[in-house]
Amino acid sequence: MDVQKSAHAPSPTAERSRPDVTRRSQRSRQAIYEAALALVAEVGYPKTTIEGIAARAGVGKQTIYRWWSSKADVLLEAFLDLSEQAARAAGEDTHAIPDTGDLAADLKAVLRATVDELRDPRYEAPYRALAAEGVVNEQLGRDFLTKLLEPSLQLYVDRLRAAQEAGHVRPEADPRIALELFVAPLAQRWLQRSGPLSHAYTDTLVDYALHGLAPR
Amino acid sequence: MDVQKSAHAPSPTAERSRPDVTRRSQRSRQAIYEAALALVAEVGYPKTTIEGIAARAGVGKQTIYRWWSSKADVLLEAFLDLSEQAARAAGEDTHAIPDTGDLAADLKAVLRATVDELRDPRYEAPYRALAAEGVVNEQLGRDFLTKLLEPSLQLYVDRLRAAQEAGHVRPEADPRIALELFVAPLAQRWLQRSGPLSHAYTDTLVDYALHGLAPR
Repeated sequence: MDVQKSAHAPSPTAERSRPDVTRRSQRSRQAIYEAALALVAEVGYPKTTIEGIAARAGVGKQTIYRWWSSKADVLLEAFLDLSEQAARAAGEDTHAIPDTGDLAADLKAVLRATVDELRDPRYEAPYRALAAEGVVNEQLGRDFLTKLLEPSLQLYVDRLRAAQEAGHVRPEADPRIALELFVAPLAQRWLQRSGPLSHAYTDTLVDYALHGLAPR
Repeated sequence: MDVQKSAHAPSPTAERSRPDVTRRSQRSRQAIYEAALALVAEVGYPKTTIEGIAARAGVGKQTIYRWWSSKADVLLEAFLDLSEQAARAAGEDTHAIPDTGDLAADLKAVLRATVDELRDPRYEAPYRALAAEGVVNEQLGRDFLTKLLEPSLQLYVDRLRAAQEAGHVRPEADPRIALELFVAPLAQRWLQRSGPLSHAYTDTLVDYALHGLAPR
């Protein structure tokens, strides 16, 4: 995109004028993200349009089409940006789950942070609108899965593999299924409002998943 | 409603004429359920209307309003009816999970049947439309929860309590949270298409939940 090109190949002229263009592009991009998230929360995914996002962001429609091919793309990137901002604000590395050697403590810490994020009103309404649309709109659901959900689940796969190497998880357990024992209950309570979300709840899920329901 | 009233207080006249009325009411009711389920699958919840359901079922709008107060009520009852029909066809008792004394086997059998139901096309599209709407429409979500989801989850609570009494589940485990370890992953894979649904998958969930991920 333009921003990256100007950074890689500065010209004498660009040195004077491009920083303004870059700042302006950055501002437009942020305005578009904010408009997209606000609109989908207010009117739902089906009624959110590129035109509506452009009008609310105060940019031309063509500015949006220059950077993205559809409203789904805009929204998914707006979410990635929001999640990364939230993670940076919390001082977290979004690309790994900590490994302190104590699997239960590490999982509990990450799930407590996820509970806080799901209860954050900036996040709640747009994320809910997108998740609901993904349930009935298979293409969007698959994009949502590939770009947002699956990469975050893979972080649990990596942490569980490390725990298997350390002898803290049975070697024969499939990490991709195992993570669902504590991630999916949280997702269901949030999506279907089937119970309260709290740190005590996610701590309990981790304990049950690691130690099992049957007496030892 | 009328059908029940005629059953409880038959009059000499009613004995001759009411059976026809009852049969006609029953036929109208089924036609309304089928129209409601077909419509919500085709056009989604927001665009499904009482008028549309009436037209498709070949009944007057007032017939629907005589029995139900809103389209949400019609749809939720149509679902309950569909689930009960499916359970009867499978020879199951919808009001309890079997207790053969083998908790793992009983849970696996019920979850296998749930997988089959979720993959049934008659069920898939309307259930998905209603679940998606419940994510963004809090009132419908709560009705869906109270009338459909929570009563079925309580069957697992009962089975897990019996298992606690038999010494097969730790006495300190909370059955309402414990059941989420195997029910929620199935719900998430189905709603978010985050992995294949199979009997082998739900069997694995039950084994992981009962025995835990940590080595014993």
